[in-house]
Amino acid sequence: MKIIGQMGGKLNKRMLDFSSRERFKNFLKRLAERVKVAEGVDAIESILRCIYRNQPVSTKRISQYTKLPLPVVSKVRSILERSRILKRDEKGAVYTEYGKNLVENNLKFKMKMDLKCPTCKGRGIILDENFKNILRRHREYAKLRPKVNTRIDQSHATPETAVYRAAIMADRGDLEGKKVLFIGDDDLTSIPSAMTGFPEEVVVMDIDERLLNLIDEISKREGLNIETVKQDFREELDRKYWGRFDTVFTDPPYTLNGLKLFLSRGVEGLGEGDRGVLYLAFSHKPIEEYLEVQRIVNSMNFAIYELIPGFNIYEGSEIIGNTTFLARLVGKNLKKFKKEEIDLSKLYTGEVRPTLRYYRCLKCGRVYKVDGRNVVIEDLICECGGRKFKMVKREKVKNRN
Amino acid sequence: MKIIGQMGGKLNKRMLDFSSRERFKNFLKRLAERVKVAEGVDAIESILRCIYRNQPVSTKRISQYTKLPLPVVSKVRSILERSRILKRDEKGAVYTEYGKNLVENNLKFKMKMDLKCPTCKGRGIILDENFKNILRRHREYAKLRPKVNTRIDQSHATPETAVYRAAIMADRGDLEGKKVLFIGDDDLTSIPSAMTGFPEEVVVMDIDERLLNLIDEISKREGLNIETVKQDFREELDRKYWGRFDTVFTDPPYTLNGLKLFLSRGVEGLGEGDRGVLYLAFSHKPIEEYLEVQRIVNSMNFAIYELIPGFNIYEGSEIIGNTTFLARLVGKNLKKFKKEEIDLSKLYTGEVRPTLRYYRCLKCGRVYKVDGRNVVIEDLICECGGRKFKMVKREKVKNRN
Repeated sequence: MKIIGQMGGKLNKRMLDFSSRERFKNFLKRLAERVKVAEGVDAIESILRCIYRNQPVSTKRISQYTKLPLPVVSKVRSILERSRILKRDEKGAVYTEYGKNLVENNLKFKMKMDLKCPTCKGRGIILDENFKNILRRHREYAKLRPKVNTRIDQSHATPETAVYRAAIMADRGDLEGKKVLFIGDDDLTSIPSAMTGFPEEVVVMDIDERLLNLIDEISKREGLNIETVKQDFREELDRKYWGRFDTVFTDPPYTLNGLKLFLSRGVEGLGEGDRGVLYLAFSHKPIEEYLEVQRIVNSMNFAIYELIPGFNIYEGSEIIGNTTFLARLVGKNLKKFKKEEIDLSKLYTGEVRPTLRYYRCLKCGRVYKVDGRNVVIEDLICECGGRKFKMVKREKVKNRN
Repeated sequence: MKIIGQMGGKLNKRMLDFSSRERFKNFLKRLAERVKVAEGVDAIESILRCIYRNQPVSTKRISQYTKLPLPVVSKVRSILERSRILKRDEKGAVYTEYGKNLVENNLKFKMKMDLKCPTCKGRGIILDENFKNILRRHREYAKLRPKVNTRIDQSHATPETAVYRAAIMADRGDLEGKKVLFIGDDDLTSIPSAMTGFPEEVVVMDIDERLLNLIDEISKREGLNIETVKQDFREELDRKYWGRFDTVFTDPPYTLNGLKLFLSRGVEGLGEGDRGVLYLAFSHKPIEEYLEVQRIVNSMNFAIYELIPGFNIYEGSEIIGNTTFLARLVGKNLKKFKKEEIDLSKLYTGEVRPTLRYYRCLKCGRVYKVDGRNVVIEDLICECGGRKFKMVKREKVKNRN
């Protein structure tokens, strides 16, 4: 634990004197500053609330619940343990008696359970027999997905997520009889969407040929009639696809330039100046970036008709807290960004926020440095032959743009 | 039926020749133009889809489902009946065999049921025992609400809606230990919110003294400790309230100026330049207006963290389709609009879109003209003594601003 950041040793007595509410709140504020979390004290409160309602709870689940990056949650948890507010149960974080009293008295926590709908997990929709059947089949295909390429921000949404995406698009009337375009599809969302038999046409564009080949293969076996197109999204779509589609789905790189680029390709598919529906999966961001995301979306004449936090769940991408939101955008008189308005050198998170990560081999303990550009985690093999690693530290190479 | 608009007699043969898909789509397009619905052919498809999945279904329910105004739905339904696509069952609209084939062949409708979660009705949250108990108590108080004043766009959300609002605020951590301000509260959402015992402070501001008196009375009886303040939102809040609150709830008049005004008062309560959470109930709008709403919200530095369509259900306000969305806005470095940026002469829908409505007395059949300014429906008493009316026609007095 000690390796992640510098938080040991510095908890002096004044900091742990919570005899007044003001002091406790100040402690939370300093804690937020120390872990450098953009959401500030709200983030700390949200972690405390999650544990209060769900204890014992794992760091990973706290991260999903609060939508905060795993390393942040892990640091906060560690400091709270050292402050005797939390302790470690074998199943995860729990409050000490002292900690429980602190948050009940100072933050007025009372609710012992969430009100999240147990049936739909807050997504608002369910899978009927048809979609459950699709999920069973899709689970097998999802196992065949090629290894992620983190250089281009690939990460795998769970098979359930892909099927729920198809279900919500179907429910909202955006699949039946519609021409549907996937701008990138490393999650294979096109497969359950086409399995419904609802769309009139399904086209998948991606730069990754491994993926396109797999989709071709599944499409052939299942008779899905999906068209695949190799496409570098830095280039415009072939004119024959302009204005062809009713519905677009995209889960772009989680950078502002990535967003502009993928949405602009989406607008080409829907038709500049036309109407259209675009489903956007995007990571939960601190307020300033959220605002930028929404300004970009609005400037293209897309309105946010619906936004469901935590709709998409990913396998193992802890940095974004494993979940992203799903927004249903409806646009009219659509506009795309011009080439010169997008900085193509800052499309991927590794380019915008260069980060060094240190991974320890789970077999022999050797530690490796991974920069996400020259060395990526999925290619890492330890000298001892080990292929399983645990991230033990990360540091920013320079500031965000 | 004939009274609502001019749609009889004009269905010529060419219009009803659906031998090709193109022709059917053209028919839908002309239908959209004829009923002057801003959402165009999407709106017509959405009505057809709703009936396909829910038949037999009442006009009112179609309106709730599609979020389209009741008079639009009613006109469309009537034309579709005359075109032999729909027929009238005693329980509502159903397809004719001919109509069913038409939409299955041309719109590719296949889904026989929605996927909306049956447990939470798509809201994503549920009421636990505590909130169910609050609902039972709140239902009785809701009956005491003063008659709506439609001049200032009052309309009553159902008691369930008020309790679900309290529940989602509680679930998201925006009630416990928080200072909560209601900018207007003709729905009495403050009552279930305070009944939870979660907030540190609840303040309700409204211009309607009848309402404030009722809230005072309930607060006293239940020991809720709600503070009520008579406030004309055209004026700034008293300085002592500036920056005092953590959470604001508002369901403003559904005009852009109403939105700017109520949100600006909200920003005063949260603190200019500060962080804060604001829950906004607002009506579903055509895309252009949706975009304007989101631009207004963004320009105040609020980001839309969550947007749930149809969350709020109202009693009898058919014009907005009986439902509005609920958005959870999170802001930082908040900004309000300056006085000169808000047109105070266009706050209420009756000012922006003056409309004449004709109501027929259900007892004797006399028809009355209601302009929503000099005469309002809630004050209407028929010469025969009847107090129940049905709207039979509406017409715009002049164009929107």
